[in-house]
Parts: sequence; C-alpha cells; structure tokens
Amino acid sequence: MLKSPYDTDCITWSPQGRLYQVEYAMEAIKQGSLCVGLKSNQFAILATLNRAPSKLAEYQQKVYMIDDHIGLCFSGLTADGRLICKFLRTEALNYKYTYGTNCNPGRLVNRLSEKAQIKTQRSSKRPYGAGCLIAGFDEHGPHIYETNPDANFYEYYAFAIGSRNQSAKTYLEKNFETFPEASRDELVKHAIKAVKVSAQGDVELNGKSVSVAIVGQGQQFAFIDENEVERVLESLNQEMEVEV
Amino acid sequence: MLKSPYDTDCITWSPQGRLYQVEYAMEAIKQGSLCVGLKSNQFAILATLNRAPSKLAEYQQKVYMIDDHIGLCFSGLTADGRLICKFLRTEALNYKYTYGTNCNPGRLVNRLSEKAQIKTQRSSKRPYGAGCLIAGFDEHGPHIYETNPDANFYEYYAFAIGSRNQSAKTYLEKNFETFPEASRDELVKHAIKAVKVSAQGDVELNGKSVSVAIVGQGQQFAFIDENEVERVLESLNQEMEVEV
Amino acid sequence: MLKSPYDTDCITWSPQGRLYQVEYAMEAIKQGSLCVGLKSNQFAILATLNRAPSKLAEYQQKVYMIDDHIGLCFSGLTADGRLICKFLRTEALNYKYTYGTNCNPGRLVNRLSEKAQIKTQRSSKRPYGAGCLIAGFDEHGPHIYETNPDANFYEYYAFAIGSRNQSAKTYLEKNFETFPEASRDELVKHAIKAVKVSAQGDVELNGKSVSVAIVGQGQQFAFIDENEVERVLESLNQEMEVEV
Amino acid sequence: MLKSPYDTDCITWSPQGRLYQVEYAMEAIKQGSLCVGLKSNQFAILATLNRAPSKLAEYQQKVYMIDDHIGLCFSGLTADGRLICKFLRTEALNYKYTYGTNCNPGRLVNRLSEKAQIKTQRSSKRPYGAGCLIAGFDEHGPHIYETNPDANFYEYYAFAIGSRNQSAKTYLEKNFETFPEASRDELVKHAIKAVKVSAQGDVELNGKSVSVAIVGQGQQFAFIDENEVERVLESLNQEMEVEV
Amino acid sequence: MLKSPYDTDCITWSPQGRLYQVEYAMEAIKQGSLCVGLKSNQFAILATLNRAPSKLAEYQQKVYMIDDHIGLCFSGLTADGRLICKFLRTEALNYKYTYGTNCNPGRLVNRLSEKAQIKTQRSSKRPYGAGCLIAGFDEHGPHIYETNPDANFYEYYAFAIGSRNQSAKTYLEKNFETFPEASRDELVKHAIKAVKVSAQGDVELNGKSVSVAIVGQGQQFAFIDENEVERVLESLNQEMEVEV
Amino acid sequence: MLKSPYDTDCITWSPQGRLYQVEYAMEAIKQGSLCVGLKSNQFAILATLNRAPSKLAEYQQKVYMIDDHIGLCFSGLTADGRLICKFLRTEALNYKYTYGTNCNPGRLVNRLSEKAQIKTQRSSKRPYGAGCLIAGFDEHGPHIYETNPDANFYEYYAFAIGSRNQSAKTYLEKNFETFPEASRDELVKHAIKAVKVSAQGDVELNGKSVSVAIVGQGQQFAFIDENEVERVLESLNQEMEVEV
Amino acid sequence: MLKSPYDTDCITWSPQGRLYQVEYAMEAIKQGSLCVGLKSNQFAILATLNRAPSKLAEYQQKVYMIDDHIGLCFSGLTADGRLICKFLRTEALNYKYTYGTNCNPGRLVNRLSEKAQIKTQRSSKRPYGAGCLIAGFDEHGPHIYETNPDANFYEYYAFAIGSRNQSAKTYLEKNFETFPEASRDELVKHAIKAVKVSAQGDVELNGKSVSVAIVGQGQQFAFIDENEVERVLESLNQEMEVEV
Repeated sequence: MLKSPYDTDCITWSPQGRLYQVEYAMEAIKQGSLCVGLKSNQFAILATLNRAPSKLAEYQQKVYMIDDHIGLCFSGLTADGRLICKFLRTEALNYKYTYGTNCNPGRLVNRLSEKAQIKTQRSSKRPYGAGCLIAGFDEHGPHIYETNPDANFYEYYAFAIGSRNQSAKTYLEKNFETFPEASRDELVKHAIKAVKVSAQGDVELNGKSVSVAIVGQGQQFAFIDENEVERVLESLNQEMEVEV
Repeated sequence: MLKSPYDTDCITWSPQGRLYQVEYAMEAIKQGSLCVGLKSNQFAILATLNRAPSKLAEYQQKVYMIDDHIGLCFSGLTADGRLICKFLRTEALNYKYTYGTNCNPGRLVNRLSEKAQIKTQRSSKRPYGAGCLIAGFDEHGPHIYETNPDANFYEYYAFAIGSRNQSAKTYLEKNFETFPEASRDELVKHAIKAVKVSAQGDVELNGKSVSVAIVGQGQQFAFIDENEVERVLESLNQEMEVEV
Repeated sequence: MLKSPYDTDCITWSPQGRLYQVEYAMEAIKQGSLCVGLKSNQFAILATLNRAPSKLAEYQQKVYMIDDHIGLCFSGLTADGRLICKFLRTEALNYKYTYGTNCNPGRLVNRLSEKAQIKTQRSSKRPYGAGCLIAGFDEHGPHIYETNPDANFYEYYAFAIGSRNQSAKTYLEKNFETFPEASRDELVKHAIKAVKVSAQGDVELNGKSVSVAIVGQGQQFAFIDENEVERVLESLNQEMEVEV
Repeated sequence: MLKSPYDTDCITWSPQGRLYQVEYAMEAIKQGSLCVGLKSNQFAILATLNRAPSKLAEYQQKVYMIDDHIGLCFSGLTADGRLICKFLRTEALNYKYTYGTNCNPGRLVNRLSEKAQIKTQRSSKRPYGAGCLIAGFDEHGPHIYETNPDANFYEYYAFAIGSRNQSAKTYLEKNFETFPEASRDELVKHAIKAVKVSAQGDVELNGKSVSVAIVGQGQQFAFIDENEVERVLESLNQEMEVEV
Repeated sequence: MLKSPYDTDCITWSPQGRLYQVEYAMEAIKQGSLCVGLKSNQFAILATLNRAPSKLAEYQQKVYMIDDHIGLCFSGLTADGRLICKFLRTEALNYKYTYGTNCNPGRLVNRLSEKAQIKTQRSSKRPYGAGCLIAGFDEHGPHIYETNPDANFYEYYAFAIGSRNQSAKTYLEKNFETFPEASRDELVKHAIKAVKVSAQGDVELNGKSVSVAIVGQGQQFAFIDENEVERVLESLNQEMEVEV
Repeated sequence: MLKSPYDTDCITWSPQGRLYQVEYAMEAIKQGSLCVGLKSNQFAILATLNRAPSKLAEYQQKVYMIDDHIGLCFSGLTADGRLICKFLRTEALNYKYTYGTNCNPGRLVNRLSEKAQIKTQRSSKRPYGAGCLIAGFDEHGPHIYETNPDANFYEYYAFAIGSRNQSAKTYLEKNFETFPEASRDELVKHAIKAVKVSAQGDVELNGKSVSVAIVGQGQQFAFIDENEVERVLESLNQEMEVEV
Repeated sequence: MLKSPYDTDCITWSPQGRLYQVEYAMEAIKQGSLCVGLKSNQFAILATLNRAPSKLAEYQQKVYMIDDHIGLCFSGLTADGRLICKFLRTEALNYKYTYGTNCNPGRLVNRLSEKAQIKTQRSSKRPYGAGCLIAGFDEHGPHIYETNPDANFYEYYAFAIGSRNQSAKTYLEKNFETFPEASRDELVKHAIKAVKVSAQGDVELNGKSVSVAIVGQGQQFAFIDENEVERVLESLNQEMEVEV
C-alpha cells in the first residue's frame, strides 16, 4: 500500500504541505555507513567507517578531496555521492581559474544546494540520495557543513550522519564544547572515538575500515596515516578496558 | 485516501474552481518558523525566530539582504526560500545595472509574483513551498510585502507568517495603529514582542534565536545587534513579570 | 469521487461534447469578489468591491489601467489576473509603437481570447482562472467587454462578475435602459449602487473597499476620487433609509 | 463511469476501430445554436440564430467574412470557432498575396481539414470543438461546405448544424430541389424560414437574433440588412397564420 | 472493460507478441464503404461505392488521382485517407521533379509504408485509420496495391476493402483468372459487378454513387463517364433478371 | 488481467530482473512464417515459406538483398522487418561509399544490434517486432546470423525462426554436421527440406511459396530459380514416398 | 501484484529511501552466466562460462578487449553489455588520441559509472541490465573492477558475478591470499577452477565454453589458447579424481 497518495513524485504537495519524495530521499542517507565531522579553532576533521562489499574487496574509501582546502565524505547512494563530488571539484576548479583564489567552502556548499533544489522541483528527475559532510578552511577558520537531498545545508560544530549516527552524535554533544581548544591529536582522537562508539561488534576497526582526513590552518587537506589511526584505536581500547 | 480527486497536480481545476496543489503548497509555510514584519513612517523591520537543527549547530539565519534598501525573511521550504532570495538579488542587481538606480521594492515583488505564477501553471513543475515577508524602502517610505506560493502578494502595515503566527498577528492587530509614529527602538521592541508572544516555552529566546533587521530613511538594510536584541528580551521579561 | 471521468484535463471531451476542466475554471471567477462594468453613450465605468486579506493589510486594488483609453478589473485567481493585465499592457504598447495610434479595445480583447484559447487545448497547461471586465473607448464610443477562461468574450451594456454578482446583475437589468443618456455622476452612482446591493452586511463599504474608474469621451482612464465614492455611498444610505 | 475504456484520448482506437474522443468532439457542435446554409445557382446564403448570454448583452454575431467571396458561420465552442475563422482569413490573404487571385473556397476548406486532422492524431492536443458552414463563390458558382472536428468536410446543396438542426434539415430536404432556380429574395426567405422552424417558442426572432449573409455572382460577401430580415420574419408570421 | 490490458497504446506488446492498437486501427477500414481494385494485362481499375452524408449532399468522391499513372481509393477515416493522398501526390511530384521521370507505383507504396510504420512505433501518435487501394501503371504493366494501418502492403490481382467486402472478394475470386485477357469494357463491367454484389438493397446504384477510374497502357488515369457506368449498371440488371 | 504489473513498458524491470516487454516482442517472431538459414564452407542459403494474404494476391516475398554479398529474411511484424531491411541497405551503402569496400556482414549485424538496443531503453518507443536471419559472405567464408528484438544476435551453422520452427530446427540439428562439405545443390536441398518438414498439410509448396536465395564464394547474392525449387520439391516428394 | 507501490520507475524513492528499480536491474546480472576475475602481482585474468543459444550455434564470446591493457566481461542483458563495451572502447580511444598515452583503467571505470548514474535518475530511461568485470593494468600493477547497474564500482582481489557465482566466490575466498605471488600458469588454473566449481553437471566444459583472457606486466590483453584451457581442464579432472 502507498503510505500516502501524495508520495510518488517530488512535485506533488501533500495536503499538509509536505513533499514526501524529498523526505524519503533523506532516508537513503541512513542506509550509508557512518560519517563524522568535527572542528577545533584550527582544524576540521572528517572520519568515516568504511565498508567492504566482500572479503575479496578492499574497504571503500568514502572521503574525497575537493580542493586543497576542502574535503567531503558522504552517506547514501554511492553513485549520487560521487556525482556530487565531481560537481564540487569542477566548481572549485572553475572558481580558482576565474578568480585566481580558493573558493570559499560556504559558497561551494551554496552552489550544491542550488543544484540539489532543481532535483526537487522537476517531474522527470529525483532528489539526490546522498547526504554529505564537508570540511573546509577559510579566513574565518575551519567549517563543517552538512548538505541534504532536500537541498538544505547547515553549519555545525560537529556532526554525524549515516547508519547509527545517534551514538556518535550523543558522544559529540557531550564533548563538543571542548573541541575549539583541542589540539590536532585530541581532535583526531575525538573523531575516531565518535566512530568507535557507533560501530557494532561485528565490524572490525582498523586503519583501513576507519578513514580520517584533516584540513586547517597551515594544513592542506590530507588523510591521517593508517598507522596513526591504528595507534589511536589501540589506545582507545586500552582506555575503555580501564574504564571497565 | 486522496482528499480530492483533483488535488494531485497544479493544472487541474476542482469542480469548485480551486487549485488544490497550490493551496497545499501554502500549508508548507506554516511548517516554517515564525517571521514578523512591521513598519513605522520611517522604518520597516523584519524579525524571525530561528531554529537550530541540533544542539551541535548554530541557529539558522532566515533574514537575507536583497539590496541596500530591501530585506527578506521566509517560512517554509528552505531550499525554495533560498532560490527566491537569489532570484531577487539578481533582479535587483540587474535593475541597478540597467537603470543606474535602486529597484523599487514593489516592482521586485511583482517580478517574483510573475515567476511564481509560472510554477502554478505547468504540469512538470510545482508551486514554490515558501512564503516571504519583504521589507523595503522607497520614495513613498517603508513597505512590508508578503508573497505566497499562489503567486499573490499583499502590502501590510504589519504581518506574521510561519508556525503559530496567530498569536503574533493578534499582538500586531492590537498595536499596529501606534506603529506609524513609533520610534526605531519602540518598533524593534514591538517586533521582538510579536515574536515572543508566539514562542512556546520550549524555545530559548536570545540574541541568536531571534534575528531582527531594519531598513528605512537614512538606514541601509542592517541587522540589529545581538546584544540589543538580548537587552530588549530581558526588558520584556521584566515587563511581563510586572504584568503578572 | 470524480464528478465525471472526463473532467481531469482540458484536452478530453466528455461524451456530451463538453470540456469540464474549462467549465471548472469558470467557477474560479465566482470565488473572486464583485466587479461591475457599465456604460453610457459617453463613458464606461468599472467598479469593484475590494477585499483586504487581513485587518493589517490595505484593500487590494483590482482595477488596472491598460492604456490611456482602456481599463480592466478581474475576479478569480489574482496571479492569473495580473498576468492577463501585463499581457494586455504589452500588447497595447506594442500596437501603439507599431502603428502610432491607440489600439482598439475590441482588438485587444480578441488578442486575449486567442491567448486564452491556447490554454484550453494543451495537455501541459491549464485554462486561466480569472474573468475580466474591460472598459474601453474608441471612435464608436465606450465599450464594456467580459472575457472568460473558456476564451470567449462578450460585449455588454452593463455587467457584473464575481461572488454574489446576481444581485448586481438584477439591479443592472432593471436600470440599464436609462444608462445611455445618464450623466457621468448618474453613471458613477449606478455603478456604486450595483456594488452596494451585492455586498453583504459584513463588508464595510467606503472609499477604499469600493474602487471606481472611468474612461470615455475626453476622459482618459482615471480613478474616481475616494472622497467622491464615499459621498455617493452616504447619499445612497440616506436614499435607502428613506425608501425604508 | 467511463462510457468506454478507449474514450479518453484521441490517439486510442477502440476495438471496433473508432476514435471516441473525435466523436465526442462532434457532440460539441450540437450545443451551439443553429446555423443554416443554402444556395441557388447564383447565390450562397448563411443564416444563424444568435444567442445573447444575458439581457445585458447584444446578440453574439456568429457569421464572419473570410474574404470578399467567402463567409463562415459555426456552432460549438466559440473560442475554437474564432480560431478557425482567423486561420482561414490568414490563409485566404496569403493565397491572394502569393497568387494575385482569390483563393478557391474548396481549397480553403481543404486546408482547414488538414489542420484539423493534426488535432486528431496527437496525444497532447484535442480535436476542435466547432463545426462550420462555409459559403463561397468561384467560377463553378456558389458552394456550401460543412467542416467537422473529425477533419472531414462535405459539400451540400443546403444544410443545417447546431442545436435542433433536425427541423431545419427537414425543411431544407422538402424544398432544396427548388433552390437552384430561386431568386435572391426567395433564397433569403428559405434561409430565414429554416431558422424559424427550428426555433422554439422561448426565442424571440428579430433582425438581431437572426443573421443572414449572402455571397454570389456579382455579389460580394455581405450581411442582409436587419430591416429586411425583420420584414421577412413578419411576412412568414402572416403566412403561417394563414396556414393555421 | 478493456478487452486486454495491453491494448491502449501502440507501443505495448501483448504477451502473445501482438500490437492490439494496430489491429484495432485495421477495424476502422471496415467502417468505410466498399472499394474494389482489379487489373488486366493492360489496365488497372478502381471502383468505389460512394456515400452521401445526407440527401442534401452530393455523393462523396473517394477516388483520387495521385499522378498521371497512379490513382487511389480508400476506406476508413476520411481525414486520414486525404492526408495519405496528399502525401503521395507530393512524393510523386518530388520524384518527377528530381529524376525527370514518373515515380514507380511500387516505390510510392513503399514510401507510404515507411511513413505509416512510424505511426505504429511512437507513444504520442496513433496508427492511420484508413486502408487504400492503389492502381498504377509502369513498365511491368498495371498494378493493384493494398496498404494498411499496420504499415504493410500487398500486391493483388484484384481486391476489395471496406464494409461488406466479402461478397465482392468472393466474386473476384471466382473470376480473377479471366481478368488478364479481359478487354477494357469487360474489366469495367467486372469492377461494377463486384461493387453491385456487395451493395445491399437500401443503396441506390447509379453514375454518382458508383465511381470507376482506369489507368493503363496508353491510358492516363481517368474517371469512367457517369453515363457509361449507368449503362453498365442497367445491362447488369437485365442480365440478373435473366438469370433469375 | 495483466500477466505481471511490470510488463507494460520496456523501461521497467521486474523484481527478477527481466524486461517483459522485450520478451513479449520476441513472441511476435513466432507469428511470422518460417525462415531457414544454413551454410556450407562455400555458401550461405536463406529459405522462406511465403504466405499469400488471399487467393487474390501473389505470395509475399520475405527475402531481401542487402548488398551483393548479404541477404536477409525475417519473421514477425512485416513493417518492422522492412524498416530493418532499409536500415541495413543504407548502412551497407554508406560503408561502401566511405571505405570503398564491402561492409563485413558481422559489422552490419552489430550496427543493427546497436539500433535495436535503443528501442529497448526509451519510454516512448517499443522494441522491434521482427527477427531476422542474415546470410553473408566475407574473407572468412559464409555466415548465418540471427538478430532479435532484444538487440542480441548470434552466429549459427544453421537456424530456423518463425512459426513451427521446431521441426525445421530438429531437421537441421540432425544434419548440420554434414553441411560444411555439402555441394551447392545438396545445400539447397537441405534448405528446402527444412522448410518442407515444418509446413503443414494445408500449405501448398511450390516455386512461389518457397523462396530460396544463395550467397557465397564466387556467388553474388541471388534467388534460386522457381523451376529449380519446384524440381527439388518434386524429388523430395518422391524420396518421401519411397521412405514410406 | 506489485511488490511495492514505489517500484515501477527509477525516480521514485520508497519510504525507506530505496530505489527498487535499480535493485531489480541488479537481479538481471544473476541471469547471465558466470564471469570470474582475479589477479596476481603481475597479471589480471578474466574467465567466463559461455553459453550457446542452441546446438546449432557457436558458444557466445563474453570477453572483450577494450584496449591493449584493458579487457571486460559481463553478465546480464547482452545488448546492454555490448553497449557498455562500445562506450568504453570509444572512451579509451579518445583518451589515447587526446593525451597520447593509455587511459588508466580506474579512470575508465569511473567514466562508466558516471554514464550509468544518469540512467538511474531519468524518468524516460532505465538502469543498465548488465554487470561487468574489468581487468586492467597500469603503473600500480593489475586491477580487477566490478561495475553495476546502480552506477557503483568496486576494486577486488578476485571476484565472480553471474549465475551460481556463490560457489566461485567461495573458492576465491579460500585461495585469494595465495594469488599475489602466483605464477601466470597457477593464476590461469585458479581462474578455470573457479569456473569449474560453479558449473553444474549439464554444462560441458571445454576450450570453447570456457574463455580465459589475461593482461599484465609485459603482457598485452590476450586470450588464452583453447588448447591450453582444455589441458588445464583435463588436469583439474585428474586432480579431482585423485581427491575422490
């Protein structure tokens, strides 16, 4: 049965003024694996829990560099996420070519929002099925943005999307007030811990299944070394044993 | 069940001569948070109650500058509101470039209405899901306009849209006859009070959750300082305690 | 339930040879407020009952100048009415620019009819939801035309459209034989009285809620002054008291 | 209920090989008022019964000149009839401009048929809702053509379409063998009588409600004077009294 | 009820691999009146039974000249038949203009087939509703082709389409082996007799209701004189009386 | 009843990953009459069982020359088959014009496959309703290809399509291992026998109802003479009598 | 019955945020026959189990060369697979022409993903019905990619798609850790064994029904000789007998 007779395309309003197809597209994000973003006064960090489609495959990387000063990770439909990623890279490049300077991350997020809005207002298209966390750095410092299939975007101190994001968000809410003054290493640890509290027992956490990337003051967008990630994971294990 | 067999697209008339899809789009406005607009003989003021999607995010700004002499706030679908905002900025800029003078706010509202009408008469589009309050100043003084998904617009002495606008409108109806002669500070106070009477207990009112912007004679479009907003909120609290 | 299985788009004939969607669009006119048009040998007059969407708004003007010698008022979907109005202004202007002379009002009405017809014969459009009364003056004297969503138009001695137009039409039918020889002031009085007999008790009639405009011999299109309207309304009140 | 599951668009054949939407469009003609056409060896005549939408309006003229030697009247959807009329005028004009001679009426009818056919074979259009009687004169003498929404056309000695055309056709069938040798005045009388026998008691027949136009040898297309029509109507009344 | 859920458009295959809409269009041919085509070694002949829409109209001609050496008659939707006829005339003319020689009738039939095929493979069109018999002459002698809404065509020794074609075909099957050596007059007589055996009592057969056209060796396409047709009809009557 | 709710257009996948409309189009081939193709090391042969739509028509030829070295026969929708045939001829001609050499038959089959694929992936088209056997000769010797509405193609040693192809295929499977070394005459005999075993008693086999064409080494595409076909048929009859 | 009311086109989200049509298209892959890909540090190998549509046809080749350093095999809709194959060849050629160097296989896979994404977001198209395994070699060594109708792609150490891929994948999972150091011959043996364990008794395995292709260091893309494949099959048979 249809949940509602107004929910099969994105150009039909429900009597309550809702666009159900846009809301359903938001559900696709929850089916992707976890993405975490957080920032201090100096750095913005993205951390993801990667999945492997099979024992025979490597873990799928979900963090992408958009430009020297901007990175992105996404949950949801992978093909849509990649398309968004390609769009942002092109926009950033065009901007740099035209103005000779880095594109402001907020401006880029705004451009993506405009593109996503179009997909919510045409009968022959569908809203995107991916949500993104975007980490960027500009003259006002680091930023974490979330973008959504409904073409809305938000700026956060820290945030998590994807499956089981609630545990990660609870961790972040407890600790985000200490982030601004946190050191690079502390921030990395917070990011990995937010991923760890969300991961269930059946997922092995290691330097390949957990990706961490950083951008910030004097720090071009870069991935944290697998070994460092593993060291942090190990130290977290020891801490938690201690806690127990 | 369908509410009516004539309500799934905006190009089908009901037997009573109504376009239900357009009416449903109007409902989307009520789901947005409160916007208030009011004016004296000298100033027009917009005030909004901002929401934060999470403890981890900042309050979302909903008031936008269109031009030096025009501002806008909206309730409803954020992505549609932003699109409208961008459209008006471009129109205002084009006008200034073409004619070398500020675009009359009424003219701009009329252009938006023409654009919105098209969305109500094509099978492959949908009506916008956002209502706007537009504050502007021209040679006839300040103006407050409301624009709607049905492509209609109205000029008001004072008005409120968005969720729980009824309380705000009741306040405005009781007091609007005193607005024309009100001073800048009195007008700001009225705006904030109209927001306050609509806000329920679970929303914290402060300099970030309540935005106020002003435009008028010798006053380019500008936001009222957060501190000033907080001072007014505090004085209103004291007054209301006294009243109790 | 559908009233008829043939009534959801304007390109489907019913077995009786009717286009229901076009007929439904005609119903939209009845939802608009009253418009009255009438003419003498010298003048054509439009009178409307204006609505205010709220106590906080001014009455909405529904009479528009198309050209020096042509005016229009409409009932129904405001956005459609405005679009029609803009179309006619552009047509009149183009004509004047091309031929160096005023466009004949009948010709203009014919152009509108052609445009409206297209909306009744395309699957992706809908018929207009507004009916118009058009007052114009040419070498044959003054004219009152009615145009409709079905793309038909009629010339009248006097007519009324919009909600409760029946009372107004009854008044006009009783008196229209005296109109040709009526003076300007008598004609204005007839127009206002036709509005008055249709208005129910809950509408306040005054110089803002009743608009009257005139065009004719040696008289460019112009609005009757609010004060004059109020004087006429008062004298009508006195007359009716006397009658009682 | 649908009369047939194959009757909602004009590109779907019924299992019996019928296009119901085209047949339904034919029904629209019966809803228009009566049109009569007839011819002698020298003249072709069109006569129509005009309706007034209200006591306040003049009777609507339904006979149009297409060119000096061609006239048209129609029953059905007025907007469609006017569109057809405009199309034929343009075609006739273009022909005259291109070839420097009058366009043959049969050729013109053929062009209209081609245009109407297109409307019966596209999913996004609808068949025309008007039938026409076309009177023309060429080197073979006068002609009366009927054109239909199904894009077919016929040549007649005499014919009637529109509401209650059966009585008129019965009259014509009884008398058409005398038409070829009839004088102009006799022919006019036959035309008016054919209208009269179809008109029911509630319609007043006079020089305005009955239009008669003529074209033929040495006779450019022209309307018969209202007074003459009234004289004929009066003489018919007297004859019929005599008959009673 | 739908006869089949796969029969409402021409781009949907039934599970048995049939296109029902194309088959339904074939039914339209049976609703047209009778067409007969036959040929000897020297001549090809078309004969049709014409209908008059009313006593007031002339019989409708259904045989058309395409070129000096090609003629066509059709049963089914008249507007579609005329369109096909116009198409073939244009094709024949273009061919003659391009190559300076007569277009081969088989080639022309092929072109029509290509055009008709398109109508069976597009969602927004419908198959033609007319079948044609085409008589032509080329260096191989005379030809009779049948073309159909399914875009197929066949060459025949003799054939009949339209309502009650079965009686005509039975007559032709009994006699076609004598046609190759038949003289012009015998062939005409066969054609008229094939029409006559199909006609029911309520149709008057005469020089106007039966059309006969011929093309062949040293014989440009031409209509057989009405008087000749009537003489043949009379002689046939006499023969049949004798038979009785 | 629908066989499946996923079977009315060719762009909807069934839950099992099937495109039913494409499969239904394959059924159309079975409704056509029999086509047989087979090859030796030197020759490729096509043989078809022709149908006559009536006693009054000649048998319909179903074998077409595409180029000097390529021939085609098809079963299914005749109009679609002819369209495919025309497409291949044009492709072959263009190739020869561009490269100055014969187009490889495999390449041509590939081009047809590409064209057919498009018809299986657009909402407004339908898959072709014809299957083809294509016989060609190139530097690798003779080839027999089958092409299908699902845009797939196969190369065969010998194959049969169309109604009752099973008997023909059984015959071919029993004998195909002897084909490579068969002489021209033996190959022709095998082809005709494969047709004969499939034909039921009610079809008369003769030089007109059975067409055979050959292409190969030193043999341009050519039809086998009717007389030869009849001689083979006769010898087959005698053999079978002997067998009995 | 529909499995879900949201599963008939690829632009409708289910309430759970899934695109069922895309998931159904994935099912088409399982209907194709088995494809296996695996790699050592030096070579990448593709192996397929080929089907013959009939005893009369050769086995259908399913492995294609894209470029000297890239090969592809696919399961699912053959026509879609061929289209993908042609697309990749053209892309690789264009790249080489533009940049004068071989196109990186990962880049090519990415281009295919972008193209496939479009098919999942348009109302008038359908997702591809074929999955591919792509083997390529670049400066980082050999690669095995899988691409899917959902526009996603993965890199694998070894993988299998198509019907009964589970047995093959189980074999690969048990042995893939030894692949990196395997010699060319060992790798070929693994590939053929993975095919063999999946094949059921009714399929004959030989040098025609099993295709193996290799690309790698100093090894342009090439097919393994049929004889070699047969030798390996034989040795595998002997080993398995021994095991029993």
